[in-house]
Amino acid sequence: MNDLTIFQEPFSPWMHEQGPFDDIVLSSRVRLARNLQRYTFPKALSIEMKQEITQKMADKFNEKTFCTDRVMHMFHMDELTDLQKSVLVEKHLVSPLLTKTPGSSVLISSDEQLSIMIHEEDHLRIQSMFTGIQIARAYELANQMDDWLETQLDYAFDENFGYLTSCPTNVGTGLRCSVMLHLPGLVMTKQMDPTVHTLNRLGFVVRGIYGEGTTALGHLFQLSNQVTLGKTESEMVDELTKITEKIVEQERHARDHLMTHARFMLEDRIFRSLGTLKYAILMQSKEAAERLSDILLGIYLGFIEGMSIQQIRQLFTWIQPGFLQVYAGKSLDINEREVARANLLRKYLA
Amino acid sequence: MNDLTIFQEPFSPWMHEQGPFDDIVLSSRVRLARNLQRYTFPKALSIEMKQEITQKMADKFNEKTFCTDRVMHMFHMDELTDLQKSVLVEKHLVSPLLTKTPGSSVLISSDEQLSIMIHEEDHLRIQSMFTGIQIARAYELANQMDDWLETQLDYAFDENFGYLTSCPTNVGTGLRCSVMLHLPGLVMTKQMDPTVHTLNRLGFVVRGIYGEGTTALGHLFQLSNQVTLGKTESEMVDELTKITEKIVEQERHARDHLMTHARFMLEDRIFRSLGTLKYAILMQSKEAAERLSDILLGIYLGFIEGMSIQQIRQLFTWIQPGFLQVYAGKSLDINEREVARANLLRKYLA
Repeated sequence: MNDLTIFQEPFSPWMHEQGPFDDIVLSSRVRLARNLQRYTFPKALSIEMKQEITQKMADKFNEKTFCTDRVMHMFHMDELTDLQKSVLVEKHLVSPLLTKTPGSSVLISSDEQLSIMIHEEDHLRIQSMFTGIQIARAYELANQMDDWLETQLDYAFDENFGYLTSCPTNVGTGLRCSVMLHLPGLVMTKQMDPTVHTLNRLGFVVRGIYGEGTTALGHLFQLSNQVTLGKTESEMVDELTKITEKIVEQERHARDHLMTHARFMLEDRIFRSLGTLKYAILMQSKEAAERLSDILLGIYLGFIEGMSIQQIRQLFTWIQPGFLQVYAGKSLDINEREVARANLLRKYLA
Repeated sequence: MNDLTIFQEPFSPWMHEQGPFDDIVLSSRVRLARNLQRYTFPKALSIEMKQEITQKMADKFNEKTFCTDRVMHMFHMDELTDLQKSVLVEKHLVSPLLTKTPGSSVLISSDEQLSIMIHEEDHLRIQSMFTGIQIARAYELANQMDDWLETQLDYAFDENFGYLTSCPTNVGTGLRCSVMLHLPGLVMTKQMDPTVHTLNRLGFVVRGIYGEGTTALGHLFQLSNQVTLGKTESEMVDELTKITEKIVEQERHARDHLMTHARFMLEDRIFRSLGTLKYAILMQSKEAAERLSDILLGIYLGFIEGMSIQQIRQLFTWIQPGFLQVYAGKSLDINEREVARANLLRKYLA
């Protein structure tokens, strides 16, 4: 990785790896919230104190590698252009909140699999991502980083409560595990609402893929554990893994059901989306996501040949405002983006 | 023409000729309503009497040609299959009413340009069709046939009223002139409703292309004169010709306006239609007509190359239920027709 590739390539290097059930589970993500003793939480922390922590982190990672093959690169939000910040958000390497927080930074590994947000809601948020259902592996990597950092820094930790965090819902393990799921079958068979209801009752949260408050575009959902207090890390990892496997099974079942009972409708929908993506002159991001979702399903079902799920997944990132502007090589207003998005899709799918 | 081509070919031979303004005016049609003395109108006429008239007509045309190059072929509705009757209606060679009237027949010329319906609303309805704005030429041909028939038969004619017809609105000249217009520009710029209103006030009728009571599919409209009493034939022909030229001018203006003010929207709409027609697996006739209308417009505006307006016009007939079944070589229910229609369009536009 260098500054060029991270801001130019929509696909992070780790995304090229295959993972279990990655036809339905796009990725597994784990995040550990950590804070340092003797500093107030970021929201109330002065810029000077923030800089002190950031400098401390920079020193730790300066010319050091956390693992043998991972070099961590520091990016200060204040030094990035709006476009570069958009790109990091679109790659899920930082949260939208981080880009809006003065004095915030991020450390990102060469393979973009591991990142540490500095001064988001907490002083540190260690994050790790893998393809498919690999929550345990993602936890393992984040935990490794966490263990090493714990030898270097004084974490805010309470014997009774566990790790202390800015938001009470994170207190305890500070762990949040999530998976990104592609669930067109459950949506089309109208099982998504009852499924979300059941998941909520079991303590899980379902939302759109660009974080809290975003709606689910392109049948992509983020499923995560809600409660971190009173459970061990491995319990949380196991629970999410099991429920995800269950959902994958339901999704496959829904797709089979559609193939048996509504094959023509399904095929028509998928090929219309392909035709529209290949010919449209204007394309809003919402429609693009929905139609790309149809293409993913079409590849899964064997209707569409000569395209891979990985290729189409890249497009979900390419069609975001930031990457569209990277692709165009200039800043674009919302109307120009519709033209650029349609151009890109036509070209890519030709 | 033989039985095979008339029931197999969606394009009548006369349609291959070019006509003035045929990029907007698909065709001009003229129809003369005539009745015979000493017979009641068809509605109250016995089958025996109907057969007598039909036999008389058959004798007149038996091995004779009306013009040197026109042989008239007789088809009796009672002897045709439902599919064959649909095909004649879809080619506008007979009216839907004729196919439902017991004891009715039609004479059709080899080039399918001239036809005489026997026992529709009137004993005889002489009809002639040309491409583009050629109402005068269509009238001339129908009139030639009418003059010849008048030497052979006793027409019901009144010195004061003119030709007597079954429906009072046709009394006088018995003439109805109509043009088939493609007016997407007026529709998209929302000028169609006021235009229809003005035309009605001026004594013209606007309707869908498959006759009375049908809605306008694919931005195709049939414009005709309403009043036949108190005007000479040439006045009626002139009036419709002039008003059609005026509408053509307005339509071109509307298209120019769209190109100037909504070019991207227009291009997007046209190419989305092309993409959908090229990829859909199911297609209803209403949607097909609308999308083919977009393609016609796209060819006119130069967006779509390598396809001709004539080629696309053929498709408007191909997608009708009758021709779809001809194409499939078997009878199809409504769901099967959606599949067959989409197949045909994909294949034709590939």
